[in-house]
Amino acid sequence: MDGRDTGSMTKTLGFIGLGKLGLPIAENLLAGGFALRVYNRTAEKAAGLASQGATVVKSPVETAAAGGMVLSIVSDDRAILELANDEFCQELGSGIHISMSTVSPVTSRLLAERHARFGGHVVAAPVFGRPEAATAKKLWICTSGSAAAKKAVKPVFDTIAQGVFDFGEEVGAANVVKLAGNFLLTAAIEAMAEASAMVEKNGVPRADLLNMLTSTIFNCPIYVNYGKGIINAQFEPAGFSIPLILKDMHLVQKTASDARVPMPILNLLIDRYLTMLAKGLDRYDAVGLALGAAEDAGLRW
Amino acid sequence: MDGRDTGSMTKTLGFIGLGKLGLPIAENLLAGGFALRVYNRTAEKAAGLASQGATVVKSPVETAAAGGMVLSIVSDDRAILELANDEFCQELGSGIHISMSTVSPVTSRLLAERHARFGGHVVAAPVFGRPEAATAKKLWICTSGSAAAKKAVKPVFDTIAQGVFDFGEEVGAANVVKLAGNFLLTAAIEAMAEASAMVEKNGVPRADLLNMLTSTIFNCPIYVNYGKGIINAQFEPAGFSIPLILKDMHLVQKTASDARVPMPILNLLIDRYLTMLAKGLDRYDAVGLALGAAEDAGLRW
Repeated sequence: MDGRDTGSMTKTLGFIGLGKLGLPIAENLLAGGFALRVYNRTAEKAAGLASQGATVVKSPVETAAAGGMVLSIVSDDRAILELANDEFCQELGSGIHISMSTVSPVTSRLLAERHARFGGHVVAAPVFGRPEAATAKKLWICTSGSAAAKKAVKPVFDTIAQGVFDFGEEVGAANVVKLAGNFLLTAAIEAMAEASAMVEKNGVPRADLLNMLTSTIFNCPIYVNYGKGIINAQFEPAGFSIPLILKDMHLVQKTASDARVPMPILNLLIDRYLTMLAKGLDRYDAVGLALGAAEDAGLRW
Repeated sequence: MDGRDTGSMTKTLGFIGLGKLGLPIAENLLAGGFALRVYNRTAEKAAGLASQGATVVKSPVETAAAGGMVLSIVSDDRAILELANDEFCQELGSGIHISMSTVSPVTSRLLAERHARFGGHVVAAPVFGRPEAATAKKLWICTSGSAAAKKAVKPVFDTIAQGVFDFGEEVGAANVVKLAGNFLLTAAIEAMAEASAMVEKNGVPRADLLNMLTSTIFNCPIYVNYGKGIINAQFEPAGFSIPLILKDMHLVQKTASDARVPMPILNLLIDRYLTMLAKGLDRYDAVGLALGAAEDAGLRW
């Protein structure tokens, strides 16, 4: 990361992963003046970006340039570890891998070790925000990694997020925080669902309960947005699908278990999501978890 | 409730219960121009109000005047049913009993039946807000009861609250909503505690997690205020003590159970509070529940 590299890095960026968050992030980077070399496992998704000026490449390694930057946002730990193989890390050399996927802190540390062997750096940068927030450049980014690397990637973050929170130099820290946040999000859904079932079976529409609470003592995005989903029983289309959030909950469980932290609410959330999958509802949004409490109470939403 | 009664009702009010919420509410009513006839089980607490112009009486029944209004805010269902005996209901006659206590919907309905026998009305009016919110006239009031009675008590509510939410004419409805809200509040504490224990044992201070989340996707009073309590391990003095909130959780449990609504998070919250009492921590605030997840993870907060 010498001065010359930093200069070029703010211009051209490798980009891997055009999922529900990746695509709007890539579009905002293009609109913000970055040149992108884009790779996506499913090639069709990249086609639209080409017309917006992106260079579409055929493999992860082709997104990397020596001393440059690659931003990856893929579905799970396995995907990130597969793409960031020795060849990829060597190609990126002394550059920076901005790792936005929700993965375990262990995976972030392993990723950082791989890049370090070639003089490279990892900035863990998981994000909070649903696809519509990504489109609106309203993401919140949690970062961890070396101070110099975080400084170098700031122009990227400024183009796609409304704020950045720094959790220090230990590269796994931001991932720990992201997992905790997703756990809290899911716990809020379950709590709202149990409360909603309770009031409805006592004659009060869940909309009356949730509209009151989310305009007063629970007037924050998680309760407002997921509360709306529960009120309207809007489980499709999935902005954040059940298989993806269940993956996250399993990461929380492993991270907690390794550190010897019992999390009783977490365990019941995992069972709720397993039930959703057992019923073939893989296509539902995370808010679909609310159906568990409702159905257990004999309600149909 | 004829015109004459309504006129006098906006001036003089019976007031029962000078607890952590009752006292600031009574003070705000006095400051707002209401004359109060005050009763409290512990007489000393009423003395200070006398110097602010209240008339202190020696029994609940003396707070009531025919066709007038009495506001009660006492600790539990038993207390409200004991004070609102036949003599009290007869004395109040065609007046209105504003019942602010957190009690079960069943108790509200029973109370309304008692008053109805003497031509009187009950407005259920449980409130959301800690003592400091009561002092600042920042309470949120949930109401249910007859439309005419709710209209008549509006000047009282306008003097002490920042907003009123109406849940219809079935008198127990507001109580159902209040119980659901207190459950959600407690569930939020447990979820934050589990998440905090998880991050801390993975090297991230709980303050870093909670400060980030409560300034972004969880930036609402419940998470901000109880998050602060968890960060600072501030469990005393209790604004909302553990025995009181455990009482509320048992009311939620009974209300849910009667309506056949399983609430798995609720059950673990009750166990957490029971453990607090088992350890002799009755004096702690509701936020003390957070210690359960911390101690189970081998942490000392």
